[in-house]
Amino acid sequence: MRASGFFIHSTKEPPAEAELASHRLMLRAGFIRKHAGGIYSWLPAGWRAARKVAAIVREEMDAAGCAEVYMPAAQPAGLWEESGRWGEYGAELLRFADRRGREFCLAPTHEEAVTDIVRAHVSSYRQMPFNLYQIQTKFRDEIRPRFGVMRAREFLMKDAYSFDADEDGMRRSYETMRRAYCRIFDRIGLRYRMVEADSGAIGGNISHEFMVLADSGEEVILYCEKSGYAANRERAACPPPQEKRPPPGEPLCKVATPGIKTIEQLAAFLGENAPPPSRNVKTMLVRGGAGVAAVLLQGGHTLNLVKASRRPEIGAGAELLPPEEAKKHAGAGFGSLGPVNMPLPVVADFGLAAAADFVCGACEDGFHYTGANFGRDCPEPQFADMRDAAAGDPSPDGAGELSECRGIEVGHIFQLGGKYSESMGALADAPEGGARPIMMGCYGIGITRIVAAAVEQGHDSRGIIFPDAVAPFEAAVAVIGGGEKVVAAAEKLYAELRAAGVDALLDDRGMRPGVMFAELDLLGIPHRLVVGARGLENGAAEYKHRAADKTETAPLAAAAEFVRNKIRR
Amino acid sequence: MRASGFFIHSTKEPPAEAELASHRLMLRAGFIRKHAGGIYSWLPAGWRAARKVAAIVREEMDAAGCAEVYMPAAQPAGLWEESGRWGEYGAELLRFADRRGREFCLAPTHEEAVTDIVRAHVSSYRQMPFNLYQIQTKFRDEIRPRFGVMRAREFLMKDAYSFDADEDGMRRSYETMRRAYCRIFDRIGLRYRMVEADSGAIGGNISHEFMVLADSGEEVILYCEKSGYAANRERAACPPPQEKRPPPGEPLCKVATPGIKTIEQLAAFLGENAPPPSRNVKTMLVRGGAGVAAVLLQGGHTLNLVKASRRPEIGAGAELLPPEEAKKHAGAGFGSLGPVNMPLPVVADFGLAAAADFVCGACEDGFHYTGANFGRDCPEPQFADMRDAAAGDPSPDGAGELSECRGIEVGHIFQLGGKYSESMGALADAPEGGARPIMMGCYGIGITRIVAAAVEQGHDSRGIIFPDAVAPFEAAVAVIGGGEKVVAAAEKLYAELRAAGVDALLDDRGMRPGVMFAELDLLGIPHRLVVGARGLENGAAEYKHRAADKTETAPLAAAAEFVRNKIRR
Repeated sequence: MRASGFFIHSTKEPPAEAELASHRLMLRAGFIRKHAGGIYSWLPAGWRAARKVAAIVREEMDAAGCAEVYMPAAQPAGLWEESGRWGEYGAELLRFADRRGREFCLAPTHEEAVTDIVRAHVSSYRQMPFNLYQIQTKFRDEIRPRFGVMRAREFLMKDAYSFDADEDGMRRSYETMRRAYCRIFDRIGLRYRMVEADSGAIGGNISHEFMVLADSGEEVILYCEKSGYAANRERAACPPPQEKRPPPGEPLCKVATPGIKTIEQLAAFLGENAPPPSRNVKTMLVRGGAGVAAVLLQGGHTLNLVKASRRPEIGAGAELLPPEEAKKHAGAGFGSLGPVNMPLPVVADFGLAAAADFVCGACEDGFHYTGANFGRDCPEPQFADMRDAAAGDPSPDGAGELSECRGIEVGHIFQLGGKYSESMGALADAPEGGARPIMMGCYGIGITRIVAAAVEQGHDSRGIIFPDAVAPFEAAVAVIGGGEKVVAAAEKLYAELRAAGVDALLDDRGMRPGVMFAELDLLGIPHRLVVGARGLENGAAEYKHRAADKTETAPLAAAAEFVRNKIRR
Repeated sequence: MRASGFFIHSTKEPPAEAELASHRLMLRAGFIRKHAGGIYSWLPAGWRAARKVAAIVREEMDAAGCAEVYMPAAQPAGLWEESGRWGEYGAELLRFADRRGREFCLAPTHEEAVTDIVRAHVSSYRQMPFNLYQIQTKFRDEIRPRFGVMRAREFLMKDAYSFDADEDGMRRSYETMRRAYCRIFDRIGLRYRMVEADSGAIGGNISHEFMVLADSGEEVILYCEKSGYAANRERAACPPPQEKRPPPGEPLCKVATPGIKTIEQLAAFLGENAPPPSRNVKTMLVRGGAGVAAVLLQGGHTLNLVKASRRPEIGAGAELLPPEEAKKHAGAGFGSLGPVNMPLPVVADFGLAAAADFVCGACEDGFHYTGANFGRDCPEPQFADMRDAAAGDPSPDGAGELSECRGIEVGHIFQLGGKYSESMGALADAPEGGARPIMMGCYGIGITRIVAAAVEQGHDSRGIIFPDAVAPFEAAVAVIGGGEKVVAAAEKLYAELRAAGVDALLDDRGMRPGVMFAELDLLGIPHRLVVGARGLENGAAEYKHRAADKTETAPLAAAAEFVRNKIRR
């Protein structure tokens, strides 16, 4: 590509609203243009990067035996009513009526549409397994679209759906896709981790996320270097403690704690008598679809609402009870709650399984208990994993300790089982006779988000540092000065690069070197060759990798091969 | 691709609602699945055909120096208010509100978005020319979506936009694209015509359509084999007659014509005294944005409302006046109108420019005039081209005669000029100083519609007959029987075809030959090689082109090359 006819227009103004480096740099590099909140155009250089991601994804999907389809963005409400998601999906599902008043949505995901296709054409186990995928525009009406294309309302996704006659087949299809995903992210060339994840609103039981590692990532990952375990914070398991609970050693003692609302205030109030966090019980009231329960945690631990949603006492959509409702349910306000005298069902986190002689609220405003013990002073509670894992926790597989890092979710794979096939009647004859729901898996990759994640992981003060596989161009030939010989040499080098299969940009715009280099650096083009009068005299081109500090000299005649050998695909 | 893992599921039931062959065959072949009126999924085989069209379009756009972008489907109302189209565009523009109540539309075309991009980045003639294109999903809320994907509500288009500093540049860019379009349609391999067209709601002055020829096409094309002239019926010019008008020869005579409403009734009533059509004047009342006028045509001619919209007396959006309003405006009802005593402005079609002694309504219910003459009995009217051209008319370029055929519009290119840049403030510094509106062109191709048009042009009783460039697979290797040697030979041939660059399908599903051949024929795969035990004994494969009646025998060892040489790309 010649820069002169291409549309490269970077800008120096740092956009005020851009919080993330990727957002700021993609706007500055002229990769994207905002038309409304969360609604962007992809301009030529940015779109080249996105198309490179899409091409890798497509190649690996095809290699994994998936067949490409293209499903509509606008979908009739009826399909979503069949699956039940028309009612379940919140305001992120953008709904509208057509000119005849019929209800539609802009699909954020395509389980309904693909199930509708499959039930029309597949009726026997003999027609399976197969996998249908598409690369297609999705819409999610985020309440606060932000971070540029990282969390846009309209975005490009690859979504794939596997169909199997039974659960074993589904697990094999899932494993095929898991391996394909690893190949995809290996080829893209970003540092990433596959982590255990929660299935959330998509449904099903087993799921994994693929996270691009970046300090600015919204997701927290818990991982163990020793065992290889990794999970996102919603999912990371906190197993019960190995040690047994000691017998009670103190008497139950009611203490007046006027005005004490927090664990920190209580510790300060108790002074020398304050227990360690492991014996300091924090009590929270949580409401879900099934009811309200009191959840007990160690003072220093954080409640995990996804785990709370799985408890039968609480149910889906768990959230903290508003403070003003605490007294009605539990007889006292937040800060004075505890398991003793608690009228609600009580679920204690595994972190308290070995706790004796603990401090807790008295379910009476202004009072706490010290020396409280499960079984003696209150009923033995249900114990469960109710908290966020944190760095320093033992790895749930028993080998080593968890560390924390942050990541950007760029892929998510699910074993759906019969969630959609059952509700939508996608059945297939089984080998043993009778019809069974088809077993499905679904597999997403955020194509456009990967570009933003690549920028988030790779940038410096001068701009973007792309891995070779995602860069808009692998290499740039910068033409310095307009001399006839220089132009001819640069054109020759450009032709040689293309002949060597290098995706090269010929920067023939005749800008001053400093301005041109700054723009090429901002755009993140990994390999730069400079052809100028001085080097030409020595038959040399100047080479620099975007991430390197120093330039190298390459013989002009061999410069194309020199660059080709540096490119990692 | 192996058929066993691919998703090929044809069906025998002819869908009741499918009127067109393409709609019926694409459903039967399992190319598409309908989810709602005008809303379709593209299934693997159909999508392969659409992707092949898209790939050709992309290659030729890139070769023409265009840069690919990706603009959003959902667009804020504000952009469309700036161009004025939020108000002008009718109910086909699907509008909705997001969760915060902000108005959006699903874009049927992207002039506003691309102009918004360009005005943000381009400010000087030095930054032009350039051309931005995308291949992207469009939405048009058709009142009666029909004909399958031929007239769907959601569809895939390539749309390109050129930007130039002046009109000369715009014309050069237009010519570049016109040539690129011819290359695209040449490569796709369908019979087509480029025709002069009206610009309609997109705006601008000069435009051409690319029509795939098919008897079922919705568009009528007027063309002249001798001169090469071609235009769609809305646009085809009907120039004034060469001959001069003779002087009046008859006196004006008022005739009672009770109950006579049509030209046919009048001719029957007048019997021997009936004039030829060229002297039988039909008078219609037409209303547009500027007002109401009486339009005079020869009895046998058809009013062209697009041409009527261009008359200053009538204006944009011309339509026939409802019959019940005729009397109020013209003093008499339809069937009794004429230029004599007409209170409205009168525009006469060129076809009447040489008419003398004509018959017309008397502007009094139940009366006509014979022997009427312009100038003598009524004022000399404005003459203009107001009618549809028809087969047999002289070609407007004076060489030969027009013929008619039907076509499917698959591409449309426009010279927009400053229509969008003026209203949206996309200005650029001119070489002579000062800022001028950027001169734009826009260029569309209906990617998904081309697949339907290909089926419409190529099919027989057994199914689709695709040109090589559009077929889901260029060739199929049909494996007959499951014998080890046969399978090995078929696999070898399949590998050789792929090595020769042929996009081949290995039909390894083990179906009975008749069933397999019928499905391959339905799908329209152009080249079929059969590998079976009998042929294998003679070291031969059986070859058949989809459109041929007979099979040929090809030596198995050379069969891949044999097929490769038959493929036309």
